[in-house]
Amino acid sequence: MISSRASVAARACARTSGVLRQQTRSLATVSSSLFPGEPSSPHLVTPSIPGPKSKELSDRIGTFQENRAHGFVVDYAKSQGNWIADADGNVLLDMFAQIASIAIGYNNPDLIALAKTDEFITATMNRAALGSFPPTNWQELVETGLGTVKPKGLDNIFTAMCGSCANENAFKASFMAYRARERGEQAQFTPEEMQSCMQNQSPGSPDLSILSFTSAFHGRLFGSLSATRSKAIHKLDIPSFNWPVVAWPDVKYPLSQNARENAEAEKVSLAAVEEAIVNSKKAGSPNGPVAALIVEPIQSEGGDNHASPAFFQGLRDVTKKHGVFMIVDEVQTGVGATGAFWAHDKWNLTSPPDFVTFSKKMQAAGFYHDIDTRPSMPYRNYNTWMGDPTRTLQARQIIRSIQDHGLVEKTDQVGNYIYEKLTDVIENGAGRGKVEKLRGENAGTFLAFDGKTPEIRDKLIMEMRKLGVHMGGCGDKAVRLRPMLVFEQKHADLFLEKLDKALAQL
Amino acid sequence: MISSRASVAARACARTSGVLRQQTRSLATVSSSLFPGEPSSPHLVTPSIPGPKSKELSDRIGTFQENRAHGFVVDYAKSQGNWIADADGNVLLDMFAQIASIAIGYNNPDLIALAKTDEFITATMNRAALGSFPPTNWQELVETGLGTVKPKGLDNIFTAMCGSCANENAFKASFMAYRARERGEQAQFTPEEMQSCMQNQSPGSPDLSILSFTSAFHGRLFGSLSATRSKAIHKLDIPSFNWPVVAWPDVKYPLSQNARENAEAEKVSLAAVEEAIVNSKKAGSPNGPVAALIVEPIQSEGGDNHASPAFFQGLRDVTKKHGVFMIVDEVQTGVGATGAFWAHDKWNLTSPPDFVTFSKKMQAAGFYHDIDTRPSMPYRNYNTWMGDPTRTLQARQIIRSIQDHGLVEKTDQVGNYIYEKLTDVIENGAGRGKVEKLRGENAGTFLAFDGKTPEIRDKLIMEMRKLGVHMGGCGDKAVRLRPMLVFEQKHADLFLEKLDKALAQL
Repeated sequence: MISSRASVAARACARTSGVLRQQTRSLATVSSSLFPGEPSSPHLVTPSIPGPKSKELSDRIGTFQENRAHGFVVDYAKSQGNWIADADGNVLLDMFAQIASIAIGYNNPDLIALAKTDEFITATMNRAALGSFPPTNWQELVETGLGTVKPKGLDNIFTAMCGSCANENAFKASFMAYRARERGEQAQFTPEEMQSCMQNQSPGSPDLSILSFTSAFHGRLFGSLSATRSKAIHKLDIPSFNWPVVAWPDVKYPLSQNARENAEAEKVSLAAVEEAIVNSKKAGSPNGPVAALIVEPIQSEGGDNHASPAFFQGLRDVTKKHGVFMIVDEVQTGVGATGAFWAHDKWNLTSPPDFVTFSKKMQAAGFYHDIDTRPSMPYRNYNTWMGDPTRTLQARQIIRSIQDHGLVEKTDQVGNYIYEKLTDVIENGAGRGKVEKLRGENAGTFLAFDGKTPEIRDKLIMEMRKLGVHMGGCGDKAVRLRPMLVFEQKHADLFLEKLDKALAQL
Repeated sequence: MISSRASVAARACARTSGVLRQQTRSLATVSSSLFPGEPSSPHLVTPSIPGPKSKELSDRIGTFQENRAHGFVVDYAKSQGNWIADADGNVLLDMFAQIASIAIGYNNPDLIALAKTDEFITATMNRAALGSFPPTNWQELVETGLGTVKPKGLDNIFTAMCGSCANENAFKASFMAYRARERGEQAQFTPEEMQSCMQNQSPGSPDLSILSFTSAFHGRLFGSLSATRSKAIHKLDIPSFNWPVVAWPDVKYPLSQNARENAEAEKVSLAAVEEAIVNSKKAGSPNGPVAALIVEPIQSEGGDNHASPAFFQGLRDVTKKHGVFMIVDEVQTGVGATGAFWAHDKWNLTSPPDFVTFSKKMQAAGFYHDIDTRPSMPYRNYNTWMGDPTRTLQARQIIRSIQDHGLVEKTDQVGNYIYEKLTDVIENGAGRGKVEKLRGENAGTFLAFDGKTPEIRDKLIMEMRKLGVHMGGCGDKAVRLRPMLVFEQKHADLFLEKLDKALAQL
């Protein structure tokens, strides 16, 4: 499972000297050098997955914890690179990657080497309350890790625990900044505000809202869930803030071949955004003024829905015009999978968003922002842990590995390769009449297509699993591809071969 | 910083055989055997803390992140057992322990040894989406760790990321179970529910509420913050659910000497709880029906406010009577510091609470509950990570170390020792007229007292720091003691000596 220490050390040394950096940009060599023992094909020992051992272990978990959402039980020690091993000994090509949250492969030797360092062990076993008692290496750690991938224009970093927490803390920062602007930066809180907030009443607990889109997913805690609109099952029975929603533009794919029609659809959506904001600021609005808009660069859990860079520029313009903060939720799109480190890099915005949130593949979570949206006083957006030093160290190594091996550029190239091949499979090949609506033009390996029906989608995923390829769904009938950044052309070819077979059998 | 591997192995072996278990119950030996290099007195090199190096590092962090809540910058590698080392080389007796979240001492050799195991490295560097792809060892890991300290009557375990997340997921489980009971267990969701929840409207997003107490602290995300009533600074400018609040009983300390008066005060509070619940269920109630009540065994952030076991029994009775779930928030009180593993163990309830939440000293977070409050379908109370395998492994080792070394019983004894001494200091000694209202009778080392004024409290904390003892405040004017579970009589004597000196100087 673990490559020799010597090779790790050699790579670390080469990284510093920049020698390997050039060499490994060749597409063919990255995964074989990182994962010399990576399989070349699936290894299947049970006729279907989950097999008997997975089922037995899952049932045992079921005695104390929900197990009905289990796919299969995983042998992480035996998983390697792009390949996931299960409890029964099956080994599958993993194109789901723990719900899009493994960046650089299972048992990546750079991460295993990190785990053995004193710095890592000290940070993990002596977990700091980072907001009050940060470790001596915190500044250096953040600046040489998360700090090296700051989105353009944003140089503050708030660290948190998970994607939902990242979004909710960005909401809190938005609300505080919005009210600070209303009352004037230097103004004190009034006694009425101080008292009313303790009763959860206005003006201390103001009626302010977050605007989001239909099909959006921003998390599952109480604030983030109020902005989430993916599926009823995510929201049923949970009290919500009465926050407004606007329809996601009804675009056609491929985006480039439907540019004129899509521009119209996006215009409709942008007008609805402006209307919702304007209405929210009128007296008696049921939701209170919109303080921030939150948007995913590609709506992920909600079905992989895209829009054009012009749409996002329009959102930046309309939010700026009305003094609304713009939060870009890069929890799933961030960290390279779209062929840019941040998906919003490809928009070329004329001015940056106010907040960019992250989690998943970064392992660490939080948001980037500007000093203007720091709260007026300490302890306002605060908690015990304020993030996790363990995951911050891990994030630094992930970022370094991505940079050392040119994994973002590689993912862009491999994504374009798969996109072209998939177009052919769907239009002329085995997929014709069974799957449709390929998405992900110029979006790296962040690809998706629909089954003609939800049943076809579900069957396809199960067939692919039997053939040794692990994929995930999203929305009502989409298959989403979420391979890691070490997914290469050889893996793509294997995936395409198996897909062809599975589609032919449907 | 790290004790020899041999001694760790010897201890692990002794643990299994049970030999050391008996030996280490002797109070004197635990910390010296675990931390042979623990200092016997503070080491102070700068006239005040933070010193110049702490300040410089904090200022550098301030260029990208909030730093105004920094106490000092910590050298975790040099911290040991009960002693925290700062960037300037000062070494202080730590009675705050990262806001009550370090259980068994800095650089505990059992935890350092754990960090070096393949099991730990595999789990940390290949982070599972636990709700769908759990590792092969998950059942065994949970059952031999978190499962061994299940509160009486609760045998389900929901794992989460932090204390706020733990409480919010318990809220979600409460709301789902409450609605399931209303609609009948077998009933399907109606089309109206499915549609209305996507608009954040009732009946799909119902008006249901959580009842909490004045001065309560349950976290800082949007649901948990709506139940939090500690300080205005925690709540200002953040939209809240319009959830109800009831006054915490106005008890006098020591509880045992004011039993009759306190029983009256608690009766008033219990009547107010019942009234709030009954009113919430009337048509047109502004908050909607109360689905759950959340309560801390000792209100911690809100000022260390106590109540009697009879009060909590009363809460269990009134919630049961009206079909309201009872959530006991043991995020700060749990894991031994009150002289019981769970603070609510000391209540001897006639029937268990519905949910017990945990985080902080456990390092892992989540809640215990009953199978009746599992949601009706999978994916309803779900997220990407569903907890953290790294912290779950750490929790198991912390629990084992606590059991091996009898740290709960020891904390109970040391707590009683300090309580008695502090009584004398406050009533007859240097504290007279300066500090008052000692709390924590029969509550282990979970002790607190007030400064006569907030200024005296703040000064006392700064004076103690200059003398080499690190303490924390809570509420408006309380000093709270939150030492680790490896805090022994010798540490207590040192603390008492320094306190005497600091009080005399005030």
